[in-house]
Amino acid sequence: MAAFGAAKIDALLVTSLKNIRYLTGFTGSAAQLLVEPHRTTIFTDPRYDIQVREQVDCQVNVSSKPARALETALKRRAIRRLGFEAHHVHYADYARYREGLPASTRLVPTSGMVESLRAIKSPEEREAIRRAVLVNSAAFAAAVKEIRLGMTERDLAAEIDYQMRLLGAEGPAFDTIVAAGPRSALPHAQPGAKPLEANELLLIDMGAQVEGYASDMTRVLHLGQPNRRTKQLYRSVLDAQLAAIDAVKDGIPAGAVDRAARSRLAADQLDALFTHSTGHGLGLDIHEFPRLARGESTVLRTGMAVTIEPGVYQAGLGGIRIEDTVLVTGSGCEVLTPTPKELLVV
Amino acid sequence: MAAFGAAKIDALLVTSLKNIRYLTGFTGSAAQLLVEPHRTTIFTDPRYDIQVREQVDCQVNVSSKPARALETALKRRAIRRLGFEAHHVHYADYARYREGLPASTRLVPTSGMVESLRAIKSPEEREAIRRAVLVNSAAFAAAVKEIRLGMTERDLAAEIDYQMRLLGAEGPAFDTIVAAGPRSALPHAQPGAKPLEANELLLIDMGAQVEGYASDMTRVLHLGQPNRRTKQLYRSVLDAQLAAIDAVKDGIPAGAVDRAARSRLAADQLDALFTHSTGHGLGLDIHEFPRLARGESTVLRTGMAVTIEPGVYQAGLGGIRIEDTVLVTGSGCEVLTPTPKELLVV
Repeated sequence: MAAFGAAKIDALLVTSLKNIRYLTGFTGSAAQLLVEPHRTTIFTDPRYDIQVREQVDCQVNVSSKPARALETALKRRAIRRLGFEAHHVHYADYARYREGLPASTRLVPTSGMVESLRAIKSPEEREAIRRAVLVNSAAFAAAVKEIRLGMTERDLAAEIDYQMRLLGAEGPAFDTIVAAGPRSALPHAQPGAKPLEANELLLIDMGAQVEGYASDMTRVLHLGQPNRRTKQLYRSVLDAQLAAIDAVKDGIPAGAVDRAARSRLAADQLDALFTHSTGHGLGLDIHEFPRLARGESTVLRTGMAVTIEPGVYQAGLGGIRIEDTVLVTGSGCEVLTPTPKELLVV
Repeated sequence: MAAFGAAKIDALLVTSLKNIRYLTGFTGSAAQLLVEPHRTTIFTDPRYDIQVREQVDCQVNVSSKPARALETALKRRAIRRLGFEAHHVHYADYARYREGLPASTRLVPTSGMVESLRAIKSPEEREAIRRAVLVNSAAFAAAVKEIRLGMTERDLAAEIDYQMRLLGAEGPAFDTIVAAGPRSALPHAQPGAKPLEANELLLIDMGAQVEGYASDMTRVLHLGQPNRRTKQLYRSVLDAQLAAIDAVKDGIPAGAVDRAARSRLAADQLDALFTHSTGHGLGLDIHEFPRLARGESTVLRTGMAVTIEPGVYQAGLGGIRIEDTVLVTGSGCEVLTPTPKELLVV
């Protein structure tokens, strides 16, 4: 890796399983990866003996004591400055390495080295995200048909997850949010025993995981005809979402996209009700670099996959958020999510 | 906590959300807990302002910068030896504490202090586990009725998860395993696109999460009439499982339960095919202290909830594992799982 020089390390020990999957293709639940300038070695246990050899191109070390095998390899290599992932290694594991390694090996905390590579999606990754988005939208359409007054938020969430699985998802990319009425104003509502009632908002925030990759979409429905205030709020959020999408482009700072959504809401005096940031990268994780938040100077680049999801939350009434998954391109962005964005009345 | 003396600490910083939930009842997704001899303080952010005050009895500190609020509190308290959870704190967070705290505060790594308390379940916790077990068994019964030749492992797993949700589970307690035919011999099979076929084994390992607590059950079915060899293997595993259950009792070392299962399988020359340990504690986590493994000297105590799950795995044929969730009692154990254990032929 070219970044080794900047980080002043001779090798990097990768601990995050998502980062290992990204670098090697290995999908098992236990491994460590040692990346050196001229070779890469994956350490795992016999449960993954067959799988690891099928999935990876690098050197493979399978041992019933993989931690010890790694320690032995590290000692033998006599690395002077060994980078490790400070945000993924627990202190207890750090202490074990520290004890097991010779004093001549210095452990160097690193941060975001693989994550920054992951921000730009390869064509294969874009296809996986595209498939996750399509499963997501198809499951949403199927689940919406099952909505009945009296069913609980939890039942509808179960239906959504079931449909995603039937359509080929490994599962939801995160805990599906179904929040009805005033509960839709809670930023982190878990689906509960509340039954769906007439004349209230229904917020659905869902994502599918397909081939390891996530999609993310939020839509708001209204059970029965919405009143004027609700329609106005919805229109403002949709305008803000479209303004943010218009702002996305290779070379633009992430903060400018957030500002586009926020200014549009400010024009309707609603910016104080927009209590979170406009979006986030996604891929193997549902939340990845970059953040599309106030003042973020990270520059968007072609191939980044991000969400655009402004919302307003009014205690007592509820929350309205509209979210798509988009791909940054040279001329703007491609909105992957095909689900219509009119306020859906059921 | 009485254990502070033994660990030589003046206070403990609890980072694990499960440990925080156990100690305070808080179910949010972001908090830290400072336990001192005469007071306990939870630090969280404004998203949980209402929730935290409803759920906890201890002191509450809500801040939009909770890490800084904690740091300020730690400085003010001038703790000499501050314990932290070495297996739950990432190195980067450790380094941040280290930098922010005065030199007079020593950070002391601790391990399993709350987990050892969690091993003995309170009456309320036992009830939650009991409910999780019943949801689990009812969902299994409902899903078995939907089994058809040609449906995929993944479809059946989706059906099982859907039924658990309809019956009131928050979700599966872990990724449901559905493995048909020779794939059932893989110790960590993920449900795949393989269709269910006649004349093969079907292994289902599932758990429900109810009120935060987990259940765990494995059953094996046979699609069509099993042959003699399969029936023999099944009988041996069932005998081993019953022998292990018979060995469970307050005061018995965990290793003795593992030995009971292993000896019974050895009598049929099958112990070499039993490639994992006999069971594990469960509660807020699906895998908790203690382990019921070879040579484990941990003594079982009344109120521990553990799984009993011997299995044999034969490449080409498949795997047979039978697993119940049980509660340790003074006179033996109570098997919570009501699902019958005869080989189910569908």
